Amino acid sequence: MIIVLKPNQRQETINEFVNKLTTNYDVQVNTWVGTQSTVLGLIGDTTAIDSEYVAAQEFVESVKRVQEPYKKANRKFHPDNTVISLPTGQKIGDGSLALIAGPCSVESEDQICEIAESVKRSGAMFLRGGAFKPRTSPYAFQGMKAEGLELLSKAKKKTGLPIVTEIMSIEHLPLFEDVDIIQVGARNMQNFELLRQLGKTRKPILLKRGLANTIEELLMSAEYIMAEGNEQVILCERGIRTYETMTRNTLDISAVPVIKKLSHLPVIVDPSHASGINWLIEPLAIAAAAIGADGLIIEVHNDPSHALCDGAQSITPVQFDALAAKVKKLSETVRAL
Amino acid sequence: MIIVLKPNQRQETINEFVNKLTTNYDVQVNTWVGTQSTVLGLIGDTTAIDSEYVAAQEFVESVKRVQEPYKKANRKFHPDNTVISLPTGQKIGDGSLALIAGPCSVESEDQICEIAESVKRSGAMFLRGGAFKPRTSPYAFQGMKAEGLELLSKAKKKTGLPIVTEIMSIEHLPLFEDVDIIQVGARNMQNFELLRQLGKTRKPILLKRGLANTIEELLMSAEYIMAEGNEQVILCERGIRTYETMTRNTLDISAVPVIKKLSHLPVIVDPSHASGINWLIEPLAIAAAAIGADGLIIEVHNDPSHALCDGAQSITPVQFDALAAKVKKLSETVRAL
Amino acid sequence: MIIVLKPNQRQETINEFVNKLTTNYDVQVNTWVGTQSTVLGLIGDTTAIDSEYVAAQEFVESVKRVQEPYKKANRKFHPDNTVISLPTGQKIGDGSLALIAGPCSVESEDQICEIAESVKRSGAMFLRGGAFKPRTSPYAFQGMKAEGLELLSKAKKKTGLPIVTEIMSIEHLPLFEDVDIIQVGARNMQNFELLRQLGKTRKPILLKRGLANTIEELLMSAEYIMAEGNEQVILCERGIRTYETMTRNTLDISAVPVIKKLSHLPVIVDPSHASGINWLIEPLAIAAAAIGADGLIIEVHNDPSHALCDGAQSITPVQFDALAAKVKKLSETVRAL
Amino acid sequence: MIIVLKPNQRQETINEFVNKLTTNYDVQVNTWVGTQSTVLGLIGDTTAIDSEYVAAQEFVESVKRVQEPYKKANRKFHPDNTVISLPTGQKIGDGSLALIAGPCSVESEDQICEIAESVKRSGAMFLRGGAFKPRTSPYAFQGMKAEGLELLSKAKKKTGLPIVTEIMSIEHLPLFEDVDIIQVGARNMQNFELLRQLGKTRKPILLKRGLANTIEELLMSAEYIMAEGNEQVILCERGIRTYETMTRNTLDISAVPVIKKLSHLPVIVDPSHASGINWLIEPLAIAAAAIGADGLIIEVHNDPSHALCDGAQSITPVQFDALAAKVKKLSETVRAL
Repeated sequence: MIIVLKPNQRQETINEFVNKLTTNYDVQVNTWVGTQSTVLGLIGDTTAIDSEYVAAQEFVESVKRVQEPYKKANRKFHPDNTVISLPTGQKIGDGSLALIAGPCSVESEDQICEIAESVKRSGAMFLRGGAFKPRTSPYAFQGMKAEGLELLSKAKKKTGLPIVTEIMSIEHLPLFEDVDIIQVGARNMQNFELLRQLGKTRKPILLKRGLANTIEELLMSAEYIMAEGNEQVILCERGIRTYETMTRNTLDISAVPVIKKLSHLPVIVDPSHASGINWLIEPLAIAAAAIGADGLIIEVHNDPSHALCDGAQSITPVQFDALAAKVKKLSETVRAL
Repeated sequence: MIIVLKPNQRQETINEFVNKLTTNYDVQVNTWVGTQSTVLGLIGDTTAIDSEYVAAQEFVESVKRVQEPYKKANRKFHPDNTVISLPTGQKIGDGSLALIAGPCSVESEDQICEIAESVKRSGAMFLRGGAFKPRTSPYAFQGMKAEGLELLSKAKKKTGLPIVTEIMSIEHLPLFEDVDIIQVGARNMQNFELLRQLGKTRKPILLKRGLANTIEELLMSAEYIMAEGNEQVILCERGIRTYETMTRNTLDISAVPVIKKLSHLPVIVDPSHASGINWLIEPLAIAAAAIGADGLIIEVHNDPSHALCDGAQSITPVQFDALAAKVKKLSETVRAL
Repeated sequence: MIIVLKPNQRQETINEFVNKLTTNYDVQVNTWVGTQSTVLGLIGDTTAIDSEYVAAQEFVESVKRVQEPYKKANRKFHPDNTVISLPTGQKIGDGSLALIAGPCSVESEDQICEIAESVKRSGAMFLRGGAFKPRTSPYAFQGMKAEGLELLSKAKKKTGLPIVTEIMSIEHLPLFEDVDIIQVGARNMQNFELLRQLGKTRKPILLKRGLANTIEELLMSAEYIMAEGNEQVILCERGIRTYETMTRNTLDISAVPVIKKLSHLPVIVDPSHASGINWLIEPLAIAAAAIGADGLIIEVHNDPSHALCDGAQSITPVQFDALAAKVKKLSETVRAL
Repeated sequence: MIIVLKPNQRQETINEFVNKLTTNYDVQVNTWVGTQSTVLGLIGDTTAIDSEYVAAQEFVESVKRVQEPYKKANRKFHPDNTVISLPTGQKIGDGSLALIAGPCSVESEDQICEIAESVKRSGAMFLRGGAFKPRTSPYAFQGMKAEGLELLSKAKKKTGLPIVTEIMSIEHLPLFEDVDIIQVGARNMQNFELLRQLGKTRKPILLKRGLANTIEELLMSAEYIMAEGNEQVILCERGIRTYETMTRNTLDISAVPVIKKLSHLPVIVDPSHASGINWLIEPLAIAAAAIGADGLIIEVHNDPSHALCDGAQSITPVQFDALAAKVKKLSETVRAL
């Protein structure tokens, strides 16, 4: 951390501040006195130092962090890729392309089982499906809730596909026993209480990037989970909010290589929410596979025009089958580049 | 709701769709057949119709809502301003400018009581103070929690100022008995489970706009609370996330008159979070008062450079005193314009 | 400028780089050697040093500018406010609120003269009106061009109001002889060739902030004009592009105090383009006057629904008259605060 | 175009407005009278109708365009892909992946010729290099200008690679005789006078998307060029401005398939400006090739750390060679999918 002081400060003030830093934190402070201003350089573990606190000192001109504010999610302290391994053998982050597919929301036993069997045939390794649905409107369909989770379990029993589904409140956690990967949605990325509680579970957490959150904030939210002891976090880029209205969100494809550089955690891409348009899902899935995503999470519905939510961004099982074949082939080419 | 169909659709398909709409929803459908395309016009209560569901139909070209998707928050159905009245007499939305002031976080009994007394002398009608603090980093100070709430109660007892403080998880609700106005922070604006539960309480809710949420989404979140029976919602504009880095957020000052046009709910402004810079708070407070905000929520700290959070955006009691005098005078002028 | 080097660099490499900096630029370099990394601190005139060039050095970890990259527009080197004074006596930046009003585009002699006389009666000191119109569509009305400028001159002769109008290409400059203040539109804010040429004129330049330009970039564009010798630059905040669609743009009201802190140049606000909605113009004008803008530029049309452009964001002369009275009164109150 | 009228309008007003539309434009108007409001549906060529003009009518509630406002760039009226063919045989848009490479700016004969020969060996088909450089700061290196263009010609003579270089002012056009493809930079995307003049030339124009411009605005700017008779336009996605600061801009990868759906014009991607970071260029180039871009424009410098501009986002000839081999292989796989 580099702290630029305002010109003409009393030496005592500076000394007092330096003492406070070295007393309270595990850091050393080097002082560089220039002709016009003084700069303090902090060495050691600065993650616990609040840069806003430093900036609030009236003799401080500006603060610059050199070290990242996250530790457990940081590749510097954990150079090897984290691989998420389910007891049933499925893996995310091992170099393969994990396909997670299923409907926006679970609607009936027939629907979820039919889709599960279909996406499994096409190569999906995980079944997604919403039981608790975060909807902008209180008047929209909110998911089948507990019943939806039971139907997911039935589909899992039939197909062997592990379940990925979203949690909206920690009070529902007891219902998630048979869920294999718990998803935190974009709107809850900074619901810190939820993150903390999920950090106490021992299930992998799929953490989606918030609509207007930076990559650093996403890593800090992962840190919340990891700081409680659960290091099985999968990050998901699902599009960010920009001024462009042609697509529902703007897929920040650069986030994949950037996160992989900064962190050891696996990164997957959600082309369905990123675009909001079904014909865009395949090209975005291809781009994500090409750039090295560890997986894709895709909305598939046997009858998109009757889907109870997000129909406009769902593809059919037939379309998913074509997509899966293409990204598989592409992945192989990319790995051989 | 206006639905433009793709060209050359079979009449049967259209009829079937129209039947479905009139059967499931309380609407009438008018059909306008053009030479190239057909347009359906829906009249009645379209709030329950999911426009995404409509857009997902393969014969639909595009959908345009004419009616707003919110009802209880809509000024059309409730032309008079909602006024929030506390049992102790304080009001928000009655044409006066409500001043809510206090520290980012409660730090000690002395601190909170001293600030409370000071801001009261300057004309504040409500005391704010964080007990549960949402922080980007798990390693940053997270607030005094239950103890912080107790200290707020002590300050309330001493000064008579009602308490405004943030809730981060519905599990903490029992601790909020002595709290007068419960705040939902920007990061939880779309934590729908929390909103729903707060809708079941009978306390006024201060709902902050999310960092990247539209005005319509803010009103939809208010609708979540109101749909459960709690119509005492105060909306708060606190800056949105843009590309500009000179300020922490960009205060969307237009949101005040826009919300007042669309809704009957009171709207206040938070210049502290909007700017993140203490010398900007006064000019933004003045602009907010001039444009007709129903109140201001401002971070005041007796020693900003030692504040445990957000010091850089706190002003001192002396600065608050000057600010309060100015906005009071300005409010009077504006009301007389 | 503070340059953080990557760890473990050879001393020779560092020395060579430091020599290059001190040889090519008027700076001194102080070196601070930490246990893990080395930091260089540059003192002197760093405006000519390209921070991208520095960042591109493979041994550089990161670069932080301490000094602003603009000089002539910088308040540090020019503490007093710049006041723009026209030969005919009108002033911008002297503490008064300059009202600039007129139609989006000049349409006929009757139209422009009638509006000019009307806005003058209401207190406008300058007449605005578009002759060259930048339109998104090549098929939209592009302005009356040279003829429009002639009509503006006629209105000026009749009313004595100085003319403010936009230039779109430096080739048109000879036509602008009778124009008093030349406007550079948002889309041309970084048309550096145009800025440079206008820097060679001796007319005040009204420089509008680009749709997605930072405040620093706006000041750098002013610097382009000033570096050529023309220091009469008026800056204009006219809304920036964000994800919010309720308003055409998002008025960044904070830009007014921020620019005034950083620069000595006058700052005006354009509530018409910021909102794009006529009923929002008055509240935004009031907020801008309250926060200390040096002026307002407002679209006024005698018949908005027949305006050849931007009718939806024009107000009538009657509405302008009410607005002018209000902002005048408010300005007086604010100056007395 | 669908026009929703406000409730309770006089029939005469509506008739008068309808008459005006049918008289002035080549459209038919269908009226649909609902119980609460009336909707007008316009059929025919609505591109010349200004939707802002319509929205400004006081009896209009809202306007919705059904037809796109661009014609010549519209795939609906020109289903086949446009292929740009240079007299020397190079093509863009024919299904191959065109590689355009070279330094940010031309610095010397040796530099440009060396890089040209090197990128040619690696498979580049076009040489890029800046002679006129748009720089945020007036104090930064502004390019070698006319001399730079001469050096590009020398490199072209040596290697046979056609030249792609940026124009900043139409006054410089005479110097561009030997240039093969004229580039319009992001900052000039809405410099309509420049676009119009380039529309009168017969050289292909490479039009870059502005930092904050929508895809529709990009197509409208292409329309400006095409409306003047020059239909050889190549569009370029180069990243848009968002709140994320980890990358210089956010590459909007979805723009590639979206533009290809809407328009017949070729689309290329600029991963150098999109990321601003050299190690990100290869992954972004791979994603762009995978998603079907018609080409890539990449900054290559033989000595990035001594580049006079944009060094941080340049790759070396050796890195470009590896990148070119990878995207070539990938393109083949993608075409075979």
